[in-house]
Amino acid sequence: MSRRKSPLELSSEAFQGQIDEQQASATTSSGILPPIGASQGGNRSGPGLGLGSDKADGKTLAMKARRGLSRICKYILPPIILVLGTFTIFSPSSEFTKDDVFSATTVIFGAAILALVWALLQFLIIARIPVQSNGAGVSEETGLVSSTDSEATTARLIEIYEAIYEGAESFLRAEYSVCALFVICFAAVIFVLISWGTGWDTARGFFTSFSFVLGAITSMASGYLGMKVAVYSNVRTTISAQKPGWTACFNTAFRAGAVMGFALCGLGIFMLYATMLAFRVHYPAPEQWVYLTECLTGYGLGGSSIAMFGRVGGGIYTKAADVGADLVGKVVHGIPEDDPRNPATIADNVGDNVGDVAGMGSDLFGSFAEATCAALVIGNSIGLTGGWDAMVFPVVVSAVGIVVCMLCSFIATHISPVKSEAGVETALKVQLISTTVLMIPSVILAAKAFLPNSFDLKATVGNDMVTLTPIEAALCVIMGAIGGLTIGLITEYYTSHTYKPVRELADACKTGAATNMIYGIALGYKSVIIPVIVLASVIYGSFSLCDMYGVSLAAIGFLSNLATGLTIDVYGPVCDNAGGIAEMAELEPYVRDKTDALDAAGNTTAAIGKGFAIGSAALVSLALFGAFVTRIRNASAEAGAEELFLNGVNMLEPLTFAFLIIGGMIPFAFAAMTMKSVGLAAMEMVMEVQRQFDEKPHLLDENPTERPDYDACIAISTKASLREMVPPATMVILTPLLTGIFFGVNAVSGLLVGSLIASVQLAISMSNSGGAWDNAKKYIEKAAPDSDLQGKGSDIHKAAVVGDTVGDPFKDTSGPALNIVMKLMAVLSLVFADTFYAFNNGGGIFNL
Amino acid sequence: MSRRKSPLELSSEAFQGQIDEQQASATTSSGILPPIGASQGGNRSGPGLGLGSDKADGKTLAMKARRGLSRICKYILPPIILVLGTFTIFSPSSEFTKDDVFSATTVIFGAAILALVWALLQFLIIARIPVQSNGAGVSEETGLVSSTDSEATTARLIEIYEAIYEGAESFLRAEYSVCALFVICFAAVIFVLISWGTGWDTARGFFTSFSFVLGAITSMASGYLGMKVAVYSNVRTTISAQKPGWTACFNTAFRAGAVMGFALCGLGIFMLYATMLAFRVHYPAPEQWVYLTECLTGYGLGGSSIAMFGRVGGGIYTKAADVGADLVGKVVHGIPEDDPRNPATIADNVGDNVGDVAGMGSDLFGSFAEATCAALVIGNSIGLTGGWDAMVFPVVVSAVGIVVCMLCSFIATHISPVKSEAGVETALKVQLISTTVLMIPSVILAAKAFLPNSFDLKATVGNDMVTLTPIEAALCVIMGAIGGLTIGLITEYYTSHTYKPVRELADACKTGAATNMIYGIALGYKSVIIPVIVLASVIYGSFSLCDMYGVSLAAIGFLSNLATGLTIDVYGPVCDNAGGIAEMAELEPYVRDKTDALDAAGNTTAAIGKGFAIGSAALVSLALFGAFVTRIRNASAEAGAEELFLNGVNMLEPLTFAFLIIGGMIPFAFAAMTMKSVGLAAMEMVMEVQRQFDEKPHLLDENPTERPDYDACIAISTKASLREMVPPATMVILTPLLTGIFFGVNAVSGLLVGSLIASVQLAISMSNSGGAWDNAKKYIEKAAPDSDLQGKGSDIHKAAVVGDTVGDPFKDTSGPALNIVMKLMAVLSLVFADTFYAFNNGGGIFNL
Repeated sequence: MSRRKSPLELSSEAFQGQIDEQQASATTSSGILPPIGASQGGNRSGPGLGLGSDKADGKTLAMKARRGLSRICKYILPPIILVLGTFTIFSPSSEFTKDDVFSATTVIFGAAILALVWALLQFLIIARIPVQSNGAGVSEETGLVSSTDSEATTARLIEIYEAIYEGAESFLRAEYSVCALFVICFAAVIFVLISWGTGWDTARGFFTSFSFVLGAITSMASGYLGMKVAVYSNVRTTISAQKPGWTACFNTAFRAGAVMGFALCGLGIFMLYATMLAFRVHYPAPEQWVYLTECLTGYGLGGSSIAMFGRVGGGIYTKAADVGADLVGKVVHGIPEDDPRNPATIADNVGDNVGDVAGMGSDLFGSFAEATCAALVIGNSIGLTGGWDAMVFPVVVSAVGIVVCMLCSFIATHISPVKSEAGVETALKVQLISTTVLMIPSVILAAKAFLPNSFDLKATVGNDMVTLTPIEAALCVIMGAIGGLTIGLITEYYTSHTYKPVRELADACKTGAATNMIYGIALGYKSVIIPVIVLASVIYGSFSLCDMYGVSLAAIGFLSNLATGLTIDVYGPVCDNAGGIAEMAELEPYVRDKTDALDAAGNTTAAIGKGFAIGSAALVSLALFGAFVTRIRNASAEAGAEELFLNGVNMLEPLTFAFLIIGGMIPFAFAAMTMKSVGLAAMEMVMEVQRQFDEKPHLLDENPTERPDYDACIAISTKASLREMVPPATMVILTPLLTGIFFGVNAVSGLLVGSLIASVQLAISMSNSGGAWDNAKKYIEKAAPDSDLQGKGSDIHKAAVVGDTVGDPFKDTSGPALNIVMKLMAVLSLVFADTFYAFNNGGGIFNL
Repeated sequence: MSRRKSPLELSSEAFQGQIDEQQASATTSSGILPPIGASQGGNRSGPGLGLGSDKADGKTLAMKARRGLSRICKYILPPIILVLGTFTIFSPSSEFTKDDVFSATTVIFGAAILALVWALLQFLIIARIPVQSNGAGVSEETGLVSSTDSEATTARLIEIYEAIYEGAESFLRAEYSVCALFVICFAAVIFVLISWGTGWDTARGFFTSFSFVLGAITSMASGYLGMKVAVYSNVRTTISAQKPGWTACFNTAFRAGAVMGFALCGLGIFMLYATMLAFRVHYPAPEQWVYLTECLTGYGLGGSSIAMFGRVGGGIYTKAADVGADLVGKVVHGIPEDDPRNPATIADNVGDNVGDVAGMGSDLFGSFAEATCAALVIGNSIGLTGGWDAMVFPVVVSAVGIVVCMLCSFIATHISPVKSEAGVETALKVQLISTTVLMIPSVILAAKAFLPNSFDLKATVGNDMVTLTPIEAALCVIMGAIGGLTIGLITEYYTSHTYKPVRELADACKTGAATNMIYGIALGYKSVIIPVIVLASVIYGSFSLCDMYGVSLAAIGFLSNLATGLTIDVYGPVCDNAGGIAEMAELEPYVRDKTDALDAAGNTTAAIGKGFAIGSAALVSLALFGAFVTRIRNASAEAGAEELFLNGVNMLEPLTFAFLIIGGMIPFAFAAMTMKSVGLAAMEMVMEVQRQFDEKPHLLDENPTERPDYDACIAISTKASLREMVPPATMVILTPLLTGIFFGVNAVSGLLVGSLIASVQLAISMSNSGGAWDNAKKYIEKAAPDSDLQGKGSDIHKAAVVGDTVGDPFKDTSGPALNIVMKLMAVLSLVFADTFYAFNNGGGIFNL
């Protein structure tokens, strides 16, 4: 078996002298401390990958791993301790009694701590996997160092791991610096505007500002944690894939997802609820809880703002690298994906971790925080009759969701472990379905336990009161959960190559890239139909059952199995990266085949997850809009002026209608900005890679004698994403703010609804078009060369690659970020509702 | 100069024997009867183009031309005479006095007749051009028959003309058979539903049904007339392009446009107004005019329904052929556009006439009819204080527009004729700008002359009356006219290669088709921003100035220079076809260069025209929606039940909101269906062409010895478009109908507004993406081979061709048809408003 040497091999040969001692220690170490380079001091003194080797000199990998863990503690523990401390000190003054074991507080904190402990446990299990190649293929080779040489492979694996880690860490550091600056400035803006808007009630200004910062920090921590866990687990998934059978590698990737999923959910409700308890010290009486919940909306805004930067920044990073690498590597030079000779390949792998994991983590955290805030704001009056436990029912639902997800996760890891390739997708789907099914009785029980037998809520429109029962509330949550699953399964139908749509798309590649594009866009547009009808039904059902409170509960229902959803969402990029590492480390092809199979299942289920995310975002936005309307009504009633929105929001108001159309334009403008950013960054990347190929003519040899400059590509992605994420994020944040300040609340209503309507459609269609193109390409790649679709390398495949490349920004940058567009605009309007009203009684500065 | 022989030449050689006598007569004939084959009997007895030669045997071209003209008379004159007759008989009973020379009636009929006469005059001028090659190039060649041989060329020109004519005629006949069936059935539905909905007021049912049929017939006549004129003029434009200078060829194409523009406008207002006068016989009292205008809405519905079929059917036809021809011809085999060896080339040229001319004519006629109906319905109460002349002010504006457009057309043909290539675009732009500018004083004068000094209108929301002055009404029209021009010029910025966006797009082709796609879609989305803001401003301005009446007047303002807009819109495809004919007839390259230059300018101005069309569609839809709300209010007030929509349309009504989202989905579903139809038909076309190339291996030789089977391709386009136009049209027609019947008026409100919001964005972005891709390709084609963009045939050009191909259905099928989606749904709801109310007082059968 003659094979070419890769640049990575060049470096691995140089390593050979140091391997023996490393290996010895690596195999013996276990436990929390990762075995990676437990005593690999000086392994960067070799030529390495050329990745920042100047900075890394002298640092051992063990130190890095420890530092990583200590960072997690540094970022996450202090706020937890801070808020827990606050709560513990002040709790005696609240009405919380220690006898009440089944109070909302114990359930919520119990679930949160359980989730965090569970996440830690999963992490420890992953950490037990030593980073070392099993050398399974050694017997096949003799003589020269080859990819199956376990020691050289181990060294390469460690090097790649390190390179990805460094790239991801340095990007997130850079990104979060920008975010931190934004958070500080915007916290000041919030403090001033809210205080002014509420007649210099500085307490409300401060609390809102505080919860904003807390939300932002939690969001960043979620993203950072996710990246950390993903990078840490990728290489271990690759290694597990070397072992026989499917259980080990699937479980590794699945547990990596679980760490993120449970940690984020646990952290999210813990922080939120602790903040509520802390605020309750200032607002002890039930009639004051309306202010408490209003201040809490800052938490959602904080989470969402960081999500915007994270999704857009990470999305641009990952897709610039991916598209760039694809264009040069596959289209121009015909080298395979993740080939180490392609200089953009490390940036591509880094991107998976910062975009698909960190960005998505922040996104879903934002959804969760906003959905809960919306439900609390709308439902705060329940506290008047039902007490604190009834009011925090939405948080209880999320807590119950955590427990349900945890129980169901045993199905995948213990009850029915994955034994075959076909079992992978089934296992993931079973997770989603089982959690949804188990949520139904759980929610009913929770509603009966925590909600009063009957409670009144003020209707959003008119002066009627709506009388509700626990079962009705539970029904709204259940409608949401089932709606989410339905949308997810429809999404799967349109994006999986098991079904007709993607196969038709693959057929369309026969007549070239143009028909592939036409069919793909048409597929995305068509895939909107059923999800939108489902969404409309859920909206109608929950709205007419429990007014706006029902809509917010349905949104929480969509997110009720968030921990599972996140697990699956993280699982995908981990497998993707594991495959990339296998390719770069030149492991035996069967390893890559295995990770590809894991990834393919992940792609499909990730599409399902996106369906959940978009559906929930739409409901959350509507609920937030409802809360906005309620707050404006209250503000006008309190001011003694004409009560605004008493008869609802009239769309035949000139200003409202004008802004309905403008709102509909926002997602298009946003998609244009982000897509163009990806295109621009990808073109820069292509130029750079082309330059390297031109300047280093031997880079593409079978046995290359030159090494690509990976750092240059990482720098391009980093620079481009930081530069390009600011304008779209600014647009989304400033538009509702300026509209409210200058044009008033009628204009804001139009803006929010218009943007909601268009965002839903565009988000679903872009995500599905992208997913379908990706899977059509994969379907063609699986075809035999003499078959109808001609397989890899044919003209049909090339046409499919064009679709896949266009689909990248569709499905991973613009599409998912549109969720955040609608939510962020809505939550921002809600936070500043009083401020908007303060300008000419809601008429804005122009008072048109 | 050695050149290959085309299949057309093969046939032209066979013709040689017959040419002399034909030529002699062709040069001598002139006047109305077209000189084409004035005595060419039996010219189809030769082998011909292989285009339906079996059917055509024995028919002379002169007969065909005469038959064409007689058809125009058959389709158009009878209804005119019918209605004119009705009017003349009954007019003494109306309050029309013959002394009142400046009454609305004289102005409207005067302008209509002027327009028709003017169109006839332009047609006569075109008809004077004999179809014969000038043989300018004969001296260059000796010996063998070549393209510059004037006699052979003439024969070829005639053959091509005939082939296109036959294809277009047979397609329209097939299409209109489907339409006729629909019209008959739907007229019955209208009669029954309206009669039932108005408590068996069969007069209203009959009048609505009658005006529906009339609108449909007028729309079909417009489309048919447009196709006729275009086919008739294409070949004459080619011939004029052989003459030195630019004036002759520009004027020919321009006059062809003018025939269509003025004939359609004249016919439109004539029929509409005559119908109104006829209805007034039944409803003589001003307080009955509300029923008169309500019955008249059927006219708009008829126009719009046919427009839907025409736009979609024609759009699929033309783009299936175009995309198919491009894919095989350019992408697979590298032969130039319109090369006669490509079997799909005749179908492509037929498509230009049935899609871009006939379809677009029906579309704009629909816009005009609906805008006027909306304004009349909303403004009918003006008649109570201001009399008939004040009430029909919207029709007067259109009449004034005709005169203005006529005056301004002299600028292009006489005052400042086109002398150079650069002058073409200027001349067309001057037309648009000058008509808009001249409309301003004209509208003010008309308003002062026909509107009372102050008049009251009932506000759409609440019980207030809005008091208006003529100047305010005129201002709304002017805002519309200026808004339209602004949107048009922005559209030009995004789609003309004179400016940055298209040049950036051309640059993006350097890195392949994928970046071209990403940039192109982003460009389209971005181009939405300013038009939407302009539109929102016009809506806000006109709405707050004159309530919904203002919006409808602004819509009429958008369409006030419709005759000019149509002229330019038809001008484009005529030049495009002229170029195709030049290529197929293998005329000297300079002819093709000239027609290409004419076409390029036409492309840009056509983009401007699309801007007008989309903007006006949005305003028309809003105005129709306003009229719908007013009618529901009236219906509920008359029924003595709770007055619906008294406080406006509340979007926080569960059903309304659910349908807002569903409405937003409709344009996406529609775009998906139409795009996929184009993709499907194009793939069928590619397969067919490929089959011919495979079965006839000598088809692609330099001097082909085999002839392509053009008929097979025409059959594919025809079959595909007739098959595929039904589902999307049915969806658009049934959705509001079923929504209203089952879910009631709240649901319909949401549906209409949601669809309006999403359609506007999607229509603008799709049209502009498509236009930009087309022009980026043209820009690259113009580049020198050693330049940055490498010019024709390079990889960069290939990437651009992919974009152009994807853009075809964007800009010519789905994008423009979305205008009709929103208008048709709105006008349909308006027509059936009373019927919807009759189900459970507007609650629908489900009464949710």
